[in-house]
This record gives sequence, structure tokens and C-alpha cells, in this order.
Amino acid sequence: MDNKVFSEVFSRAKNERPLVHHITNYVTVNDCANITICAGGAPVMADAREEAGEMAGFAGALVLNIGTLNPGIIESMILAGKVANEKGVPIVLDPVGAGATRLRTDSVNRLLGELEVSIIKGNAGEIGVLAGADAKVRGVDSAGIAGDTVAISKSFARERGFTVVMSGKTDIVTDGKRVFLIENGHEIMGSISGTGCMATSVTGVCAAVENDKVIAATTALAAFGLAGERAAEKCRGPGSFKLALFDEMAALTPEDLLAGAWVKSL
Amino acid sequence: MDNKVFSEVFSRAKNERPLVHHITNYVTVNDCANITICAGGAPVMADAREEAGEMAGFAGALVLNIGTLNPGIIESMILAGKVANEKGVPIVLDPVGAGATRLRTDSVNRLLGELEVSIIKGNAGEIGVLAGADAKVRGVDSAGIAGDTVAISKSFARERGFTVVMSGKTDIVTDGKRVFLIENGHEIMGSISGTGCMATSVTGVCAAVENDKVIAATTALAAFGLAGERAAEKCRGPGSFKLALFDEMAALTPEDLLAGAWVKSL
Amino acid sequence: MDNKVFSEVFSRAKNERPLVHHITNYVTVNDCANITICAGGAPVMADAREEAGEMAGFAGALVLNIGTLNPGIIESMILAGKVANEKGVPIVLDPVGAGATRLRTDSVNRLLGELEVSIIKGNAGEIGVLAGADAKVRGVDSAGIAGDTVAISKSFARERGFTVVMSGKTDIVTDGKRVFLIENGHEIMGSISGTGCMATSVTGVCAAVENDKVIAATTALAAFGLAGERAAEKCRGPGSFKLALFDEMAALTPEDLLAGAWVKSL
Repeated sequence: MDNKVFSEVFSRAKNERPLVHHITNYVTVNDCANITICAGGAPVMADAREEAGEMAGFAGALVLNIGTLNPGIIESMILAGKVANEKGVPIVLDPVGAGATRLRTDSVNRLLGELEVSIIKGNAGEIGVLAGADAKVRGVDSAGIAGDTVAISKSFARERGFTVVMSGKTDIVTDGKRVFLIENGHEIMGSISGTGCMATSVTGVCAAVENDKVIAATTALAAFGLAGERAAEKCRGPGSFKLALFDEMAALTPEDLLAGAWVKSL
Repeated sequence: MDNKVFSEVFSRAKNERPLVHHITNYVTVNDCANITICAGGAPVMADAREEAGEMAGFAGALVLNIGTLNPGIIESMILAGKVANEKGVPIVLDPVGAGATRLRTDSVNRLLGELEVSIIKGNAGEIGVLAGADAKVRGVDSAGIAGDTVAISKSFARERGFTVVMSGKTDIVTDGKRVFLIENGHEIMGSISGTGCMATSVTGVCAAVENDKVIAATTALAAFGLAGERAAEKCRGPGSFKLALFDEMAALTPEDLLAGAWVKSL
Repeated sequence: MDNKVFSEVFSRAKNERPLVHHITNYVTVNDCANITICAGGAPVMADAREEAGEMAGFAGALVLNIGTLNPGIIESMILAGKVANEKGVPIVLDPVGAGATRLRTDSVNRLLGELEVSIIKGNAGEIGVLAGADAKVRGVDSAGIAGDTVAISKSFARERGFTVVMSGKTDIVTDGKRVFLIENGHEIMGSISGTGCMATSVTGVCAAVENDKVIAATTALAAFGLAGERAAEKCRGPGSFKLALFDEMAALTPEDLLAGAWVKSL
């Protein structure tokens, strides 16, 4: 795969400083804010119903992450999402823990019913459950999926008309027609909390600067994974890995991505 | 004291990856999630009343931490705690700041009245106030306790039928009969926010894999303290200490604990 | 400018361990807690209406930060602020994102109307909007201000009777009569989330130990900026910068400030 298109999208992400509005969880929110800056964006977190819509209207992208959801937060997500839809602001949804509890699964289905989501990004268990496949989620981790993950992602994307990102050892990005497989990343990324949420925030930055959401999401996953690979070389454990991940994401250049993105087109 | 039992519990913690459900504060929640992973657990944070009980039912342990409590959170704790009690999931309670305000003291007493708590872990001020001793809490820090801390912890444990952990320079763990004193740890641990909360999360991981709660809590405190000692050797201040604490906790092996746990039985 | 006065205030901050009560956002709250400790204070975060006032009554300073505000939080801020006013506890207000949404601007105006604030600290856009100048805020970042920033800050302080801190490349501190310009700091401080919030927390620590709020705020900004300069020399990117910022703030001595504060009096 020619990495030029990803490098070019990443260059815009780094230079345009898009405002990325997050309604997200309180566990990894600081990591999301910092990785957004490292990827070139300007993060803002505003979840009150009184301002969520107004803030979304100014944003380049809206990231919705249900990591610590409650019914009030879901209302704010819908208010913000409707403004985003009206103004053409892309929505990136991370259905954290969907499949683990009814509240999570039902809330995601409500968000998908009321909003036009551009990109949904979850692990195999989360995407599998939402796509109706035989999948399981334990807490916020995937506990397995049966069947062909590419086919499941592809048909889920085609049915719903959005881009699906199924993260894993190999990340899958598809809009139901095109499929990209991203091999960047390192297993140590699973040893800290928040890498999934951070990847979603980076996807928000890229979605703010690129209309082709399959390209935007692929760029984000490749860049974040490449930063992870480099950080893994410089650490002695999860604490030093996380620090290095921010350093490497901030240092990553479009040229690095040109050379180091590891993307296959199916 | 023969450290074999602690080493063996820690080995299970590292290998079984128990799900540890937290209802906790938003100040140190990210640290709690990461230290849980470093200790071998899988953290999940879910505080909405609509899912708190359901999530607790799947967990290996339930950690309740009142660091930033409000009445809604206490309701969720009770809902989650009742499910935990029904299903035999151990509850670890950190009464952060009990004694500092009426809300905190009253909320802890309500939790203790409605739930069967397995382990309560606080500083000398918090445990002292709850045990009815002459003790004081300032903000979330102990501001002193009068009397014999071992005797206070022991009689509090015996009366209530749970395991008491009173943290301090020497940590005390007792079920009212047995008493273990843990000398592991380093004073720099007091120079960052969150070491108390993290110790509670590690206690949750150990409580999920070991039925004898005095042994579980002692294992957790010794392991966390030993990681702290090692991190203290590698840092130049509180920022680098915190990073090293995660690295050392993740690197700590059952063999390290066998050699390095510093536990006395009274 | 003779730095002796700032060095002396900083010495008290480091030695007296004042309790600094925060009602703040969930994005940077952990950083605020840790930097408060590094600066010599004891942080406590308590935002429930049932305890916010009681906790404020015990504090040396009250920090109000609207980074992730909602109407319930504003009520708690007013309850805490009224107790603080009654007991002579100084209030430091950070109007994060004022000017970006109506909720933020209106909430700050309500806080300023109902409470006697000692110090307000924001970026040029935030302070400019609140002062009625031609200024803009995008998300939580300043998007520009027209006019003389010193004159705007000075007349805002004089009209309201509080100390104004307008942060920027050069920080401005004024009570409407005296004006101090602080040149400490480094541009990398803008590459992480939370430096503004942390500077406000350090200001809370200094305000707790010094009645002259212009001196307190100037001390805080100079000390935090100086720690930032030193951290900048030791880092390879935003992740390692943030770690070093905590290490340097904890290591900073009154003697360092005597030699390194870079303050001009207008």
C-alpha cells in the first residue's frame, strides 16, 4: 500500500490544530486530552447538556466515548451529536464495554439510532456484539468473537453506512467496500489503561481534517500504532511506556508515517 | 514470617487476571486502573445506578472508594454492594476522608450498615474516627490518632467482623485475631496523590484470588510497598517516582515478594 | 525587581502545608492534586453540595475551576465560596473556557456576582471576554485579544476589586494599581493539557499563606514557570516534560526562586 495518502492526512492533522470536542469517560480523559494535542488537535471536554451542543457546533470532530456513561451523559451526547450532524461535524463513537451490561449496549444502540455516526471504533467483542455476531465482552475488554472478523466488520459497516474500526493485533478499518488492515502497534499497548480511548481521540483529530473516513481512521490507527512501537523500544514497563507514547506521538512526522505505516488493502 | 503464602497469592493475582470493579473517585481513577493492570487484574469502572449492580455481579472483587463521593454515587455503591454480597464477591472499602466531613463519615457508616464489607482500608485518622477512637482527619490526610493503633484496629475488626487495614509507616492488617505488620514502603509514597487509593486497588486484585482476607490484604500491601521501595531508588522526584511505581509493580514477581516482603506476625 | 518577597512567600508555601480545597474539572484534576503537593500544599477535592461548604471552611484556600462545569457544580461552588467568604478563606477562580459557550460565561459572571473572589486567573481570551474587551476563546484556548492587555487587566482588577492574572508568554498580575510581569515559563508548557489548571492550583497554595494576593499570585506564576523552564531542559517531548515538571516543582527551593524569578514591576 502506498502510504502517501496517510502521510498527507497526518500532515494536515499536525498543522491545522482542529478542535476536537470530547464527551468521554473520567478514567482516561486526561490521556485523551494529551494525545489529542500530541496528534495536532486542540481538545475540549464539555459534557453539560447546557453547553454540549453549542461546543460541538464549533468543533472539527466530536468524539463520544461511553467509558463511564450514565443516562445524563447519553442525553448530552445526543444533544451534541444532533448539532454535529446539522453542521457536518463528523462523530467518532467508542462503544466502551458495549456487550458487558445492558446499559452500555442499549445506550450505543440509542446513539446509533438517533445520530449519524461517521466512525465507530471498538475491540472485537464490542463491535461483534453490536454487529450481532457471537462475541463477548468482559468489563471493558474483548472476551472473544466467533467468525470472520473482516466479514463481520464489513457487513456491519455496509448495513449502517459508517466506517467500522475493529481494533486488535491487526486493526481492521472498513466502510463495507474498502478494507484496510493495519499491522502497526505493540503488545505492551494492552498493558496500560486508555490506549483504546487514545486511539479514538487520534481518530477524531484525523476525521476533523479528512472527509474520507476510511482514510482518516486508517491514518490515525497507523500513526498511533507506530508511536506505540517506538515507545515500546524506549521503556522498562507500563509507566515509562505511557510517557514515551506521548513523546513519540508528538515527535511523529508525516515522513515517519510514509516510511513506517504498515497498511494492507484487502 | 514465612513469605511463601504471600508469594503464592501474588502469583495467582498476576496470573488469573481477575475483573476488579471500581466505584471510585475521579481524582486518582486513572492511577487505580493502571495499578490494577500492573498487579495482574482487569479494571472496570462503572458507577451509573443502571449498571453498577450488573457489573459487580461479573467481578472478582468490588472496590468502593469515596474520594469524591456524592449521594448518587453512594446509592450506586449500595446497589453494586448488594449484588456483590449476594454473589459472594468480596468488597474492599476505602473510606477516603472519613472524619473530615459529616457526609463522608455518615456515608461510610451507611455503607457499613447496609453491606457486608470484607476489607476496610484507611489511614490512621480515618480508621480511628470510624472505630470511635480519638482521631482526626484533615482533608484526606490523617491528622493524628491517640491510643494503641494495633488495639484499635483489632477491636474494630472483631466488632464488625471484617479485615481492617490501617495504613501508615507500618501498615497494620488484622481480622481481630491475627495481626500482621507490614514494613514495606518508602516515605516518598506520600509525596504523590493516589498511593492510598492504588494500594486499595491492589488489595482488590488480591482479594479476588484469595479467600483469607487478612492474607490477601497483607500480600497487597507488601507487594505495593515493595514496588514503592524499588521505584524510590530510581526516581528524582514525585513525577519520576510515580512512573517508576507502575513499572516496578508490573515487574514484581512472586519470587521478589518471597525475598522482599517484610511482614511480622504479632 | 527584588525577588526576596517571592522567595519568602514560597518558603512558607513549602513549609506550612496549607489545605487547598478544589472544586475543579475531571480532565486535569489529578495533575492539580499532584502539583499542589509538589508546591507544598495538601490538596482535597470535594464537590458534593452536601460537603463542599464544610470542607471549604477548613481550607487555607479554595480553588474554583470550571473546566468541566455543570449547574450542580456551580451550586457547590457557590455554597463553598460563601463559607470561604465568611471565614476569610481566599478564593482563586480559573474561568476555563469562559467566552467559548454561554454556560461558561454566564456561570463565571454568576460566581463573580455572588462571591468575593480574591484572584481570577485565565488566558488572554478568557480574561478579555470577562473584562468586556474584544477577545475570543476557542474551546479552552485563547483565540486572541485586541487592545492593551495590561490596561485591560488593570481596569478589570480595579473595577472588581480583585487580583487579575492574565497568563501568556508574559504573565500579567495586577490588582489595578500594582502590575507585575512574569517572564518565567517555556513554550513547551502549552504542549500538554493542564498547565493552566496547575498554575491555578499553585496560586491557591500561595494564596493560602500570603495575604497580599498580587504577591501570592506572582510568586506562584514565577515558581511554576521556573519549574517549567527546568523541566523543559530535561525532556524529549510532552510526556517526559510533564513528569519532569512535577519533579522540578517539588525540588524548587526558595533560593532557586530568589535567583531565578524573572519579574518586572511596571
